[in-house]
Amino acid sequence: MESTEVSNLSKFNHHSRQERFGALLGERGIDLAFFPVSGDLEYLTGFPRKVASFGNIEHAHAWLLGGLIAPGKDPLFLVNQGYASFNLPQGVEGDVVYVKNLDDSVNMFQEAIGRFGNLGTVGISARTWGTTAIQIMEAAADARLVDVSDMLGQMRRIKEPIELEAMTTASRICDAVMKEVTPLVAEGAMEIAIAGEVDRLMQVHGGRTPSFDTGVWAMGPGSGRDATKRTSMDPLPSAVGVSFDFGTVVDGYCSDFGRTIHIGEPDGRYVDAYNTVIAAQEAGRKAATPGTSAADVHSAVVSVIDEAGYGEWFRHRTGHCIGLDTHEKPFISEEDQTLLEAGMTFTIEPSIFWPGTVGVRVEDLFVCAENGAESLNDYPHEMVVV
Amino acid sequence: MESTEVSNLSKFNHHSRQERFGALLGERGIDLAFFPVSGDLEYLTGFPRKVASFGNIEHAHAWLLGGLIAPGKDPLFLVNQGYASFNLPQGVEGDVVYVKNLDDSVNMFQEAIGRFGNLGTVGISARTWGTTAIQIMEAAADARLVDVSDMLGQMRRIKEPIELEAMTTASRICDAVMKEVTPLVAEGAMEIAIAGEVDRLMQVHGGRTPSFDTGVWAMGPGSGRDATKRTSMDPLPSAVGVSFDFGTVVDGYCSDFGRTIHIGEPDGRYVDAYNTVIAAQEAGRKAATPGTSAADVHSAVVSVIDEAGYGEWFRHRTGHCIGLDTHEKPFISEEDQTLLEAGMTFTIEPSIFWPGTVGVRVEDLFVCAENGAESLNDYPHEMVVV
Repeated sequence: MESTEVSNLSKFNHHSRQERFGALLGERGIDLAFFPVSGDLEYLTGFPRKVASFGNIEHAHAWLLGGLIAPGKDPLFLVNQGYASFNLPQGVEGDVVYVKNLDDSVNMFQEAIGRFGNLGTVGISARTWGTTAIQIMEAAADARLVDVSDMLGQMRRIKEPIELEAMTTASRICDAVMKEVTPLVAEGAMEIAIAGEVDRLMQVHGGRTPSFDTGVWAMGPGSGRDATKRTSMDPLPSAVGVSFDFGTVVDGYCSDFGRTIHIGEPDGRYVDAYNTVIAAQEAGRKAATPGTSAADVHSAVVSVIDEAGYGEWFRHRTGHCIGLDTHEKPFISEEDQTLLEAGMTFTIEPSIFWPGTVGVRVEDLFVCAENGAESLNDYPHEMVVV
Repeated sequence: MESTEVSNLSKFNHHSRQERFGALLGERGIDLAFFPVSGDLEYLTGFPRKVASFGNIEHAHAWLLGGLIAPGKDPLFLVNQGYASFNLPQGVEGDVVYVKNLDDSVNMFQEAIGRFGNLGTVGISARTWGTTAIQIMEAAADARLVDVSDMLGQMRRIKEPIELEAMTTASRICDAVMKEVTPLVAEGAMEIAIAGEVDRLMQVHGGRTPSFDTGVWAMGPGSGRDATKRTSMDPLPSAVGVSFDFGTVVDGYCSDFGRTIHIGEPDGRYVDAYNTVIAAQEAGRKAATPGTSAADVHSAVVSVIDEAGYGEWFRHRTGHCIGLDTHEKPFISEEDQTLLEAGMTFTIEPSIFWPGTVGVRVEDLFVCAENGAESLNDYPHEMVVV
């Protein structure tokens, strides 16, 4: 394969973001920062990401693909021919070093870095390629290399109204799709067929691509299955809860959503677990006000599940912030002491995953606000039995 | 989302690969190498990859997730709790530093690196995270950092019989799916629905996940469309060629396949372009013998298309090696002077992409052999008109 599609991201004010980030770099004495194609680069410049692929996709000189950001200067993009020819049909706005297949990319990269003068400290993002980090050290031999992801994360984690709008659209697509696939959930149906229909419908409703691999899985007395297997080709049994976990991408921004539906009349255990998970999410929502730590929101959720006697079966963190990436910091998790701020967006996704007995999970996107977090989704929490 | 599925990779002889790679490290004076979760780490140890996601998926301490390989020693894996709990349900065989959410990961990483004694040179792979590279430099302050991807690539590019078997299985799934979706190609059908069916059928036939985003797109007099847009929701028109580009994953190994089908009676231009593309692929196949450079295989393909007068519309390289990743080096491209060797596997995928006039592309997987490359696919090249 040699191509993919890009979306138009020009409605965001990248120039203002560049100015703010440039000022932050200046304050910390960082002379230049490199970002590969990523949520970071898209946030700062609108340079679009490809959709995901399992096996690495790569052309000659791929290691230099990305953008250079310096305080008070316009971004300088480095683009290799193989990537550009099918992934950037509209080209790139701004200054570009275009590296053709037969070019000497190391030399051109050094020349590009050299344009920024004497460099004392150079920033890279968390997922900048190792090759690129090594090449930066070659190009700026006296510079110190520092990780600037958390610095940019401080900006990215507070969403602008236009970002909230994209995330709300992406979340409401999940709501619509959940409603449309509910009638497909029945004994004998195949999880992967339902998951495929989720993916197709998200695209029909305007999503670019799934935010992550869609999960549709059955747990309960009718199945020994655990939540570590996200879909299967086995026909759905009766006496199980079928959990959904999916999201889509609008203007680069991700959604992440989940519900559980029961096939057949649920036993008392399922009803109790279902109500516990819903109550736990609501406890988290109420706790998630500005000034509360992420860890304390997690504790509020854990308490409800612990008190109901299912503590052992809530086996993961409460959630994570979300935006251009599916998982952004802060994480709503025991180790994260970050204080929440208005405008942060995150999931609250408690579960009870007790293989062979009960599996229930609910997930919505929230934005931190003064009187408790507000949901970007608009889908009921009432128990659904089919 | 918080989970995904892994596959059983124990049939590969990872110990032998570790010994060979350890010896290579020793020869070059490299004391230790770090690999994140990747095709590289899976090749050496069987540590499985997740399926792909568009938005980054990440838990606390994600930067240290991976494995350390040193000459003559067993691998040491570094695994963070959030990743392990849903992605490694069977655990990891071997020595593991398990980092819990509340642990001091920097300290534990330094301790793990310290186990390998005094380090003069440390290798990292091309896509090792920038954060990890910086942390390695902190942990081994006197060590020089080098890129060892090409070194491991020298091993990975020659496929063992058991690898060829997996890739043949993955390729034959493409053949079967191409046959099954052909009846769906008709005026009025929707490209994304056909692409969704391709993805579903690849899984039904035993593929783990698509190797990359499936492409199904129409080009020709009936459409002004270019190949930069891989699928659409528009109904298929008549008087177009519909190109397919897809692959799946078996035991970690990728396939990559393509054909073009015409809707309605094709004009002379389509027939000529179709025959040219097929002849170009055959010229590449014949050229791809051991000792021929990748660039010369590309030239053999280009010549056929140039002579037919379509040179301007063959807009990309001829192909790329493939294995655990979709695009591996050497690339079958003008800049790559690598001499092919028996056992290398690669695509030959010429196209004529002339928007508004004609779009044709064919792609099969080949293994380099003495009398010209041999196809891992078994699907006819005759023109198909529906």
